Amino acid sequence: MKSRVEKVFRNLDPKPDVVLLMNSVDPHIDGCFFYLFDVPGGLFEGSVEIAHPDGQLDVITGALEADTADLAAQHDHGVTVHRVGRGETANLVKKLVPGSATVGLNFRELTHAGYNQLTEMLPSAKFIDAGVGLQKARATKEPSEVERIRSAAAIGSKVALRIPSMLKTGMTELELAAEMEYQMNREGANGRSFSTIVGFGAHSAEPHYSPDGTRLKSGDSIVCDFGAWFRRYACDITRSFHFGAPDAEMKAVHECVEAAQQAALAVLRPGVPGKEVHAAAEAVINASRWKGRFTHGLGHSLGLAVHDGSGGLAPNVDDPLEVGMVVTVEPGIYLTGKGGVRIEDDVVITKTGYEFLTTAPRGYLEVAA
Amino acid sequence: MKSRVEKVFRNLDPKPDVVLLMNSVDPHIDGCFFYLFDVPGGLFEGSVEIAHPDGQLDVITGALEADTADLAAQHDHGVTVHRVGRGETANLVKKLVPGSATVGLNFRELTHAGYNQLTEMLPSAKFIDAGVGLQKARATKEPSEVERIRSAAAIGSKVALRIPSMLKTGMTELELAAEMEYQMNREGANGRSFSTIVGFGAHSAEPHYSPDGTRLKSGDSIVCDFGAWFRRYACDITRSFHFGAPDAEMKAVHECVEAAQQAALAVLRPGVPGKEVHAAAEAVINASRWKGRFTHGLGHSLGLAVHDGSGGLAPNVDDPLEVGMVVTVEPGIYLTGKGGVRIEDDVVITKTGYEFLTTAPRGYLEVAA
Repeated sequence: MKSRVEKVFRNLDPKPDVVLLMNSVDPHIDGCFFYLFDVPGGLFEGSVEIAHPDGQLDVITGALEADTADLAAQHDHGVTVHRVGRGETANLVKKLVPGSATVGLNFRELTHAGYNQLTEMLPSAKFIDAGVGLQKARATKEPSEVERIRSAAAIGSKVALRIPSMLKTGMTELELAAEMEYQMNREGANGRSFSTIVGFGAHSAEPHYSPDGTRLKSGDSIVCDFGAWFRRYACDITRSFHFGAPDAEMKAVHECVEAAQQAALAVLRPGVPGKEVHAAAEAVINASRWKGRFTHGLGHSLGLAVHDGSGGLAPNVDDPLEVGMVVTVEPGIYLTGKGGVRIEDDVVITKTGYEFLTTAPRGYLEVAA
Repeated sequence: MKSRVEKVFRNLDPKPDVVLLMNSVDPHIDGCFFYLFDVPGGLFEGSVEIAHPDGQLDVITGALEADTADLAAQHDHGVTVHRVGRGETANLVKKLVPGSATVGLNFRELTHAGYNQLTEMLPSAKFIDAGVGLQKARATKEPSEVERIRSAAAIGSKVALRIPSMLKTGMTELELAAEMEYQMNREGANGRSFSTIVGFGAHSAEPHYSPDGTRLKSGDSIVCDFGAWFRRYACDITRSFHFGAPDAEMKAVHECVEAAQQAALAVLRPGVPGKEVHAAAEAVINASRWKGRFTHGLGHSLGLAVHDGSGGLAPNVDDPLEVGMVVTVEPGIYLTGKGGVRIEDDVVITKTGYEFLTTAPRGYLEVAA
């Protein structure tokens, strides 16, 4: 997309002669590839993009998804698709990139092997890291991007709302994850945006837990962290529930996490550094009896990837928030061996503060066993 | 796993003092990480592994999945898990890797930014590419790995068998994909191993097509290419169908693709270079009226990743097949604007030839509209 290529170059200093992206083999695909070229489908392994300061974009790809690429290029101003056979990519790159060019690469998503290939392909070129510029451009979303994340978030929210009705004593974590993913796809998702997390009981105390055959029983805390893909954009939502026999501590934990999220949202606006938003949530938890049990960053940037660049709301983020950024706000408290609670929403930063993209209720919910 | 670390070092020449793997942010995670450490769940973003020639493995990870890592380490001989806080990874790496060590890295799955971080972390170290050794070790599967792929393939095969009963006039490609993924998860999959391909009509002529809202109609060719994850191992299966009004040409295309697959299987055994197996399938198609319509490699290695290293059955693979390799065999014929047929199975190379891991019927099937 011409406007996005231009946005990337505006964000680069120094400015390279071209920006070159090269995909490796799945999963080592550069997310920026689909930022510059808005193609709805296809994997594009081994494909190359060369972006020019005037907004033009060359896309070099093979037969596996060339039809989709051609069709998308008809609607994507400034894109030229080059269909190549096996082994022809290097020669075309040499033709399209001046030998002595300064070439901006995305060091964060290019493999080191890919980097070495490019230095062989273009021995006289000077390579610089365009990663920061690419990330900056991606970080502030256009309205059309926000709309896709909103659609993804609407699907996630709908399914979050239905989780209580899916819960049954004896069901496994994997069964609940299967049901959630199915419901997202039925609502129009292009699959899940990351591997669904469902943790019952003590498993809910591990933030990046993966579901297994563990069965749901009365008294369990439940954490469900999941998201829909919609036209290559992700949502990421977490809701926590309590199943069956009440537990006063977990209810209080839930209320504390809610309060932490509210404290973060209260300071969320353009100009505030990400780390200050994290600090606001952390302060609430550290003032409670669960001090130190919030063990991760408060939130991350969201977009073409679930972890969309290094910005967000983590303790190491000095950069101020900007209008159009989309971030997750996800405080949690984890009691090892017992259970955890995390509440995660996706918001877009607006002039006056923020707007929720995810909408499912966040309050404590005891589901009858 | 001690035996796998030792296998990697056996496959390395020259031998580094340590092999170091470093994950970036999802999706830029090194598949070899889970080869060396058999941990069932977790994402392990930013985590580091340091493998030693005596088979010992240091795993450096954070709070997000440390419980899972600790539990897995109890059953994984030789693994030491180091739980670190934010920003502590670099210091621990410096402590665990001698300053002047020769360090083997996986250039194919390490980002270039990660490479640069490591050169800063270990300024006196010498870095070499351990990618070939890692890939060689991963390429020949242990029986326990084959069993996981077999389980994944059994799930894929079960669902393939049910596809005809799922087909209904007017259903969308996305609806069929949702149903297929749901059935896989219900059968015990840990999700899908890659983004499910469902193409109706002309869409079936694009190998890496992504499903959309296109509706099924009588006379459509259908290609379904999908796979289950099972305990981090992938299957990858494609079945093609014809819906409603018969089409003599597509029936003949299907029979030609079947014959091409049979020709490939007939030469599939240890010692045969991958490219010869490709050539056997291609010869059948190029002797037909669809010469040149087989536009991709015949197959790829399969395991912890769907495209598991650069081996397989492609025209550029000179390496001979070895006992324990798992590859896909997937000839196809693609008629742009009309439709395509691809038949894909997963096989393990045995002493005498091969064994099917996928089992669903491969023959031409006209499903009544």
